[in-house]
Amino acid sequence: MPTQTSTITPPDEQVRAVALERLDGLAKPLGALGRLEEVGAWLAACQGVCPPEPVERVRAVVLAGDHGVTRAGVSASPSEVTAAMVHAFVAGVAGVSVLARQHGATVRVLDIGVDADLSSAPADVTAHKLTRSSGSIDVTDAISRDLAVRAIAVGAEIADAEVDAGAQLLVLGDMGIGNTTPSAALIAASLGLDAAAVIGRGTGIDEAAHDRKLDVLARALARACDDDRRIEDPVQRLAALGSADLAVGTGFLVQAARRGVPVLLDGVIACAEALVAAGLAPGAEAWFLAGHRSTEPAQAHALAALGLEPLIDLGMRLGEGSGAMTAVPLVQSAALLVREMALLSDLVGP
Amino acid sequence: MPTQTSTITPPDEQVRAVALERLDGLAKPLGALGRLEEVGAWLAACQGVCPPEPVERVRAVVLAGDHGVTRAGVSASPSEVTAAMVHAFVAGVAGVSVLARQHGATVRVLDIGVDADLSSAPADVTAHKLTRSSGSIDVTDAISRDLAVRAIAVGAEIADAEVDAGAQLLVLGDMGIGNTTPSAALIAASLGLDAAAVIGRGTGIDEAAHDRKLDVLARALARACDDDRRIEDPVQRLAALGSADLAVGTGFLVQAARRGVPVLLDGVIACAEALVAAGLAPGAEAWFLAGHRSTEPAQAHALAALGLEPLIDLGMRLGEGSGAMTAVPLVQSAALLVREMALLSDLVGP
Repeated sequence: MPTQTSTITPPDEQVRAVALERLDGLAKPLGALGRLEEVGAWLAACQGVCPPEPVERVRAVVLAGDHGVTRAGVSASPSEVTAAMVHAFVAGVAGVSVLARQHGATVRVLDIGVDADLSSAPADVTAHKLTRSSGSIDVTDAISRDLAVRAIAVGAEIADAEVDAGAQLLVLGDMGIGNTTPSAALIAASLGLDAAAVIGRGTGIDEAAHDRKLDVLARALARACDDDRRIEDPVQRLAALGSADLAVGTGFLVQAARRGVPVLLDGVIACAEALVAAGLAPGAEAWFLAGHRSTEPAQAHALAALGLEPLIDLGMRLGEGSGAMTAVPLVQSAALLVREMALLSDLVGP
Repeated sequence: MPTQTSTITPPDEQVRAVALERLDGLAKPLGALGRLEEVGAWLAACQGVCPPEPVERVRAVVLAGDHGVTRAGVSASPSEVTAAMVHAFVAGVAGVSVLARQHGATVRVLDIGVDADLSSAPADVTAHKLTRSSGSIDVTDAISRDLAVRAIAVGAEIADAEVDAGAQLLVLGDMGIGNTTPSAALIAASLGLDAAAVIGRGTGIDEAAHDRKLDVLARALARACDDDRRIEDPVQRLAALGSADLAVGTGFLVQAARRGVPVLLDGVIACAEALVAAGLAPGAEAWFLAGHRSTEPAQAHALAALGLEPLIDLGMRLGEGSGAMTAVPLVQSAALLVREMALLSDLVGP
C-alpha cells in the first residue's frame, strides 16, 4: 500500500564512478564542464551504462486540475483558464508544447481534476479523470484519503505507460489555476514550515491576493498539521492539503523512480510532489534532477530538502513543465559530451 | 580606421516593443517566461521582425592562439595543448564540437597565433594565421600596433564570411593555453581594475601558479597602463596586453554588430573582446547576449560593464565557446515561444 514506505533502488554507483573517471580522461581540464559532468555521470548511473545513451526519448506528462482555494481569491487568473489551457495543450500551442516540439519530446495532457466537462477533448485526455476540483484546504481536506490512494495508483499507471513507451527522461508538468497554494502547503507540512516561509506570488498576484493567500495557507496548515507543523503520513498530507492531480503526480514520480527512469523536475508543483514521493518511497529523489529554479520560495525549501540544485534560473513561473522542458537540452548535452568528446590520450598520447 | 570609434546602429527598438506587446498577449501570465521574454524580444529587435524567425543557422568560430605568458608558468596545461586541440576541432571531437552537432551549428576553427606549424590541418584552418604566439605581456607588448590593426581587419573579414553564409546567431569561441591572463589584463585595463580584481584560476591552476599569474598580471598592468590603471585606446590595449587572436575576436565582434547579427558570448575571453569591441564601436554591445557565467572573476566585471547577464551558470570553464554553445537552445526557445505560442485571445476570446 502507498502509505507503507518502501525504499527505491538507487542509480548504479559503480557506473557513476566509471563515468566520472571517463570524464576526467576527456580532452579538457579536470572538472571544466562544471555541472554538466555531474549530470552526465548521473545519467550514466540511471541508465546503468557508460557512456550513457543519447537522451532522445523525452516524454512529458501534464496533469491538470482545479483547486477549491481559487474561490478564496488566491490566484491571478480565474479557474476557467485551466480547461482552456487543456485545449491549448491538445492543440500544441501552449508554452511547453512549443518547447517539447523543439526538443523532440512528447507532451501528454491529462485531465485529473479539472472543474469542467472536457469530454470534447480527445478521449485519452479524460481517461484518468478522478474528480472535478478539490476542497478548499483552508476549511476542509482537499480530497478523501481513498481518493488520494487511488490517485497515487493512477499516477503509477501513467508513469508505467510512459516508461513502456520508451521514455529515457520524464518531465512532469502541471496545469491548474491555484495550484501553487496546495503545493506550498504540502511543502510546509512536509518540512514543518509556516505559511510565511512558503508563500509566493504564483503567476503574479497583487498585494491583496497575496494577503488572502497567506491567510488561506495559514488556516490550512493550522487546520491540518500536527503540533510540530507537519503531517507525517504522506498520503494524509496529499488528502488534507493537496489535490487529486498532486497525488497523481506523486504516484507518477514514485513509479518513475521504481522503474529506474530519471525525471527532470519543473517548479514548485513538481517539487512538492517530489518531496511527498520521497516520503512515500525513500530514495526516489535520487532519480530526480531539478530542471529550473522557479520564483516560488517554497520550491527552494523543497529543493534543499531533496538535495537538488536547478540547472537553470531564468525567472520562469509558467508551470506546465515549461521550466524543466527548457532545461532538457542541457541534460541531453551532458550525455553527448560524455559519449562523444575525445579522450585526452587519443589526442596527445597516454 | 579601427582606432577611430564609430557608433553602431542598435537593434530595432520599435520591433522590440511590438515583440514585448505580443509576449504580453500570449496564453500565459504576464512575464511568466522570465528572461526568455527579454531574449525573444531582443531577437525580434535584432532581426527587425516580429515574431522573430527560428534561430536555425548558428555559426561558431573558434580562434586559436598561444600566449607568451605561458612561459611564466601561469597555466594548468602546456602550450602544446593548443595545437593538439585544433586537431580535435577539425576532427569534431572537442567539447564545443559535440554541442554544436547537437544544436545543428557549424564550428570553424582558425589558427590565428598558434605556436606550432599546423600546415597539416585543412588549408582554411591556417588561412588567417598572423603570428606564432605573442610577447609575454609582463615584459613586452603582446603584438605590434600594426599587427593589432591588421588582426581587427581579419576578424571583420571572418565575421563577414559567417554572416554571408547566413548566420542568424554567432558564437565566438577561443582555444589558447594561457589566454585567461591577457583577457583578464584587457578587462583590467578597460575598466581601471587591479590584478587582484581580475585574476582567476583559468582551467584549474594551483596556488603556486596562481601566485605567478598574479605577479605577471600586476607587472603587465604596471608596465602598460596609464596612471588611472587604464589604456584608453582600444587598439593599443589589444597590442599591449592582448594577442593576435584576441584582436581578431574583437574585430569579429565589431563587424558582427555592424552587420546586425547577434552574438552569443562565451566566457572571459569573449567578454574581454566584447569590452574592447564596445570601446572601438560604442553600441556594439547591444548585439551581444551573454551565454554563460564562467568561473573567472574578470568576466563578471566585463559583464557588468557591458550590462549583460548570462543565461546559464553551470560552473563551466572549458573555453572553446562551449558555455555559449550550451546556451544556444535557450536562445532558440525564446524565438520559438514568441512565434508559436497561442495568443490568449485565441483561447478564451478577446
